[in-house]
Parts: sequence; C-alpha cells; structure tokens
Amino acid sequence: MAKQERAIRTRQAIVEAAGAVFDEHGYTSTTIAMVLERSDVTKGALYFHFPSKEALAQAVLNEQVPFGIVPPQACKLQEIVDMTFVVGQRLLTSSLLRGSIRLAVDQEAPSRIDHGGPFRQWSERLEELLELARERGELLPTVQPRQTVELLVGCFSGIQLMSRALSGRADLGERLSVLWAHILPSIAVPGLLPALDTRADRGVRVLASPERVAS
Amino acid sequence: MAKQERAIRTRQAIVEAAGAVFDEHGYTSTTIAMVLERSDVTKGALYFHFPSKEALAQAVLNEQVPFGIVPPQACKLQEIVDMTFVVGQRLLTSSLLRGSIRLAVDQEAPSRIDHGGPFRQWSERLEELLELARERGELLPTVQPRQTVELLVGCFSGIQLMSRALSGRADLGERLSVLWAHILPSIAVPGLLPALDTRADRGVRVLASPERVAS
Repeated sequence: MAKQERAIRTRQAIVEAAGAVFDEHGYTSTTIAMVLERSDVTKGALYFHFPSKEALAQAVLNEQVPFGIVPPQACKLQEIVDMTFVVGQRLLTSSLLRGSIRLAVDQEAPSRIDHGGPFRQWSERLEELLELARERGELLPTVQPRQTVELLVGCFSGIQLMSRALSGRADLGERLSVLWAHILPSIAVPGLLPALDTRADRGVRVLASPERVAS
Repeated sequence: MAKQERAIRTRQAIVEAAGAVFDEHGYTSTTIAMVLERSDVTKGALYFHFPSKEALAQAVLNEQVPFGIVPPQACKLQEIVDMTFVVGQRLLTSSLLRGSIRLAVDQEAPSRIDHGGPFRQWSERLEELLELARERGELLPTVQPRQTVELLVGCFSGIQLMSRALSGRADLGERLSVLWAHILPSIAVPGLLPALDTRADRGVRVLASPERVAS
C-alpha cells in the first residue's frame, strides 16, 4: 500500500471513530482519548491529521454529503427523492452519519464550529440536481430552486429529528413519504407525478439495487 | 396575594429562569445553582417545586405549546398558519421557548427525559385545529389530519434549526412562508388559497393586532 493511500485510510478510520463517539456522547463529553481508543490508530497519527477536538468535529461535519450518493436516474426529481430516502436509510446503519447530524443539530458544539456547513453543502448539491431537473422540463415554472432545496434540507432535518425522538428513526421512511406527497405537487409538472416512486421503503430498494453506487 | 397565587408565580419564575439557562448552556452544563441565581427565589422554594435538574428540564419542555396561542380566526387553516409564524416570532424574544426547543432537539439531555413530549403536544393541538378545518370544508378530501400535522411539526422543527444555524433565526419568517407556499396546495381547497395570509411578517402582524391573546 502506497504511503499516501495508507494516510487516507488512517484519516478515514479516525473520522469514522470520531463520528461514532460524537454520536454516542455529543461534543462536550467527547475526548480525543475516546476517539483514539475507538479508532485503533496511534496518538501521533491522530494528532498529525487532527490537532484538536474541534478539527475532528469539523471533519465529521464535512462527511455528510457523500452519504447522499445515489445511482443516477433519467428523472432528476426521482434522484432527489432517492437522496432523501437513502440518507434516511443510512442513518440507521452509519454512526458517522448520525454523529455528523448530531453535531450539526446540537447547540452544544462551540460556535467556532460551522454548524451551518452541512445545511449549505446539502443545499448546493440539491440545487445542482434541481437545475438539471428544470433543464429537462420536470419542474413547474413557479419553482425557485434555491428556495425549494433549502426547504427540503430544513424539512428533512426536522423530520429525522422527530422520527428519532418518537420512534428511534424506525418510521423515518414513512415520514419522508408523507413529505413528498405534500410537496411534489408544488414542484413537479403534473404528468411526472404518477411515475415518481416515493414509497416508504424506497431507500431500502435503492440501496439493494445492483447498480447502486458504493459509499 | 393569596398563597396559591404566589406559589404559581414562584414556579413560573423558576421555569422562566431554567429555560433561559438551558437555552444558553444546554442540559449538561446547567446546574441548579445557575437557575437559582437567575430566578431570584430561595433554594427551599426551588427544591419544593423541582426536586432535580431533570424535573426542571421536564417542566421547561412542557411549556412550549402555550407559545402557540393565537387569536381565533374564522378560517382554521389561517389559525394553524398563524401558530407557526407566531411561534417563530416568539423564538426571537423568549429564552424560555428557545430553551425548551433546545432541550427537545439536543440529544445531550438524558433519555429519561421525554424528548418526544413537545412533538406529541404540538401534534395534538394542531390536529384539533385541522379537524375543525375539515368540518368547515377547508380541506381537500385527501388530507389525513394526523399525517399532515406531524409533517408540519417535523418541518417546523428543522426549518427553525436551519434558520438558527444560517442566520440566527433572522430569516425564519421567510422560510415559513416558503414552507406554506409549497404545502398549502396539498391541504386546502383551491378556493381558499388566495385568502390565506402566509407572508413572512405574518407573525409580527398577528402579535401586534389589538385582539391578540396574551401569553
């Protein structure tokens, strides 16, 4: 294994461990020693990549958007729908993703950390897709992409929060399905609506499909 | 002042102080001593009403729904819209409300505390109003009130969160206006839509109106 590749793997192992510890303990109670123990790397390696707890938290926060990678679809609105269901599904299995979302949502992390980062990153990624959807004639002419994507990001944040509080996220797929049923008629041209798949188990099915993109 | 009335005022002073301290410091860092200092009541009075930090947090969590009190409207959907804008506006001025929302959203409060309480209480209150809206013929026949109100509560939670992270909640009214523009066409009968006021400053105007209900 080349030196650079090893460094990338070590860094990723640290970020994964930090995400899991932040998920379980939150920012304040997490210590670098806890991350060190979880990640099974040397103290020197950890401090080489991350000089502080703040740097660890910032790295974990920046890891969210790759969890939204989904197989490309001819219909770009379907791709956006798929992103929400896939992120919802991955929340159940990835402690890094849960840790990242906890850091973005909890107020306890110090204000030096950019809590807004993930909100902006998701909005930018979704806006690219929504602009593609517009070019392909999928959107109603009234749609203002920036407003709509920021609404989606805000709604997703709160829906996963409520689902966590009420069902440990078990009903997140159902709640996302309800969101899309209410919002799509204000976004998509009517002819597209019957073809869009927004059933609660969409995330499970996308992740099980053979052409799924590895994450 | 009767003894009972004094007790109620003392209790309210403690809850207000606790809300402010939880808002600023979160659950873990808050101590009863901090609440005591802020509330200007005696230690004996505080422990008489609240034997523990947990009891204080639970009381603060239960204080959210009264912030949604708005003047009655002939159109019940308008009343629901008004609740969201008024709560958004009151978030700017009430540290008790901010503290209560922080406790519901942050994962750091121990799991013995019922994080789901405010989500359920808002949903119940909104469901009553949405059932009235249905009786008055305001709703599309496809609306399932429980699903719609839980969606609204989830979306509101996330939108205020995103607004806090990106603008210190300065743009919350704008974001709520975008939410309603996307969701109302899936809820209200079409004839009602032009009459519903969902402009960003709705909360300010409702709170300034002479018939507003004191809170």
